[in-house]
Amino acid sequence: MLLAKVVGTIVSTVKNDSIKGSKYLLLEKCNQSGEKKGDYLVALDLIGAGNDELVFVAESTSARETPVTVNKPVDAIIIGIIDLIDENEKIVYKK
Amino acid sequence: MLLAKVVGTIVSTVKNDSIKGSKYLLLEKCNQSGEKKGDYLVALDLIGAGNDELVFVAESTSARETPVTVNKPVDAIIIGIIDLIDENEKIVYKK
Amino acid sequence: MLLAKVVGTIVSTVKNDSIKGSKYLLLEKCNQSGEKKGDYLVALDLIGAGNDELVFVAESTSARETPVTVNKPVDAIIIGIIDLIDENEKIVYKK
Amino acid sequence: MLLAKVVGTIVSTVKNDSIKGSKYLLLEKCNQSGEKKGDYLVALDLIGAGNDELVFVAESTSARETPVTVNKPVDAIIIGIIDLIDENEKIVYKK
Amino acid sequence: MLLAKVVGTIVSTVKNDSIKGSKYLLLEKCNQSGEKKGDYLVALDLIGAGNDELVFVAESTSARETPVTVNKPVDAIIIGIIDLIDENEKIVYKK
Repeated sequence: MLLAKVVGTIVSTVKNDSIKGSKYLLLEKCNQSGEKKGDYLVALDLIGAGNDELVFVAESTSARETPVTVNKPVDAIIIGIIDLIDENEKIVYKK
Repeated sequence: MLLAKVVGTIVSTVKNDSIKGSKYLLLEKCNQSGEKKGDYLVALDLIGAGNDELVFVAESTSARETPVTVNKPVDAIIIGIIDLIDENEKIVYKK
Repeated sequence: MLLAKVVGTIVSTVKNDSIKGSKYLLLEKCNQSGEKKGDYLVALDLIGAGNDELVFVAESTSARETPVTVNKPVDAIIIGIIDLIDENEKIVYKK
Repeated sequence: MLLAKVVGTIVSTVKNDSIKGSKYLLLEKCNQSGEKKGDYLVALDLIGAGNDELVFVAESTSARETPVTVNKPVDAIIIGIIDLIDENEKIVYKK
Repeated sequence: MLLAKVVGTIVSTVKNDSIKGSKYLLLEKCNQSGEKKGDYLVALDLIGAGNDELVFVAESTSARETPVTVNKPVDAIIIGIIDLIDENEKIVYKK
């Protein structure tokens, strides 16, 4: 899974995903301290991640394995909102 | 999912996809403002995306999870046509 | 899917794929005009692509979704032989 | 599968994985001698890998294929803790 | 599929793969002439590839589709040992 921050929203009316009320967010990839890396992706959000929150994202087919997304054409989904990351016993990110 | 613009069409008569009337488009990857990045891919289009429209694309196996593509050998499909992207409360792309 | 040209053949007698008469080709990735990029991959060919033909290739699990390859350990398969590509209303590749 | 060392922990309370007691670790990718490469990922740990241990990690959908993770949205899981790596008959890493 | 040479072995006693007698090899990616590229990966070997042999490897979920690996968390498996590669009618690699 990769680390990313929520930086925006994607508005799309013509869609092929058959997910009712699906919400797609614009994410910017981050390092383990939450610093942005200038690399963007679009991910499905089912947990209500807010702007500037650090999240971790599953890519590839695993993105379909929730009751809502099963057998839907989605390849990136937010798995969790991160509260804290420690690296070598030091806290490197705190919400 | 990644962002890309429709820039062309792929014509192919000898195919192995068993998708009737399948339409393959040439896409150029874009940043979140819709600026092209010089990186191309081929994707299946089932929603009628037009030339120069910004779309988001699912890659990997998720591309097979629509009624038309299920169990077909496709690994990139257009999920939605983008109307608008906002980043940090500012509109960075508008159709 | 990615664009590539057939540049050679892989001969292998000890195999783990249980695909009878499977034929593996050496491909070189190309841009949308059919220019080679110096990046190679091995793909399964079930449609008889010939030397120097431009093809498009599905990678990842989608490569298993044909009657012949279902549940076989293959992750790259030639989907179609390309006749023509147009980009921004201009023909950039013709067979 | 890729090689990586355990360097930290991810704490997340709002999650979408439905895996009870799931533990996510921060890993840093390594070469075959266990030297860190400055490239990080988040992986699910079900075998109790400890700090600074060298592990190998499956990415992509294969990450879902354990009794605990089947049909869960996880795309990176620790497969094994490495005791020893030999390269060209020489031991290049030992725990 | 990618080309790689067997360069070593991974020894791991704490594993999460439930594959009896599974053997993991250290591979170094190669070009089509069998020249090593300095890029390594770990793959499951079920066909007994030996040191310095050139093999082709399936990555992603396709790695699970053999009777032994079905539903196991493996994402790279050796598909075949290569005897010969020809490129543009010339033999560029011979075992």
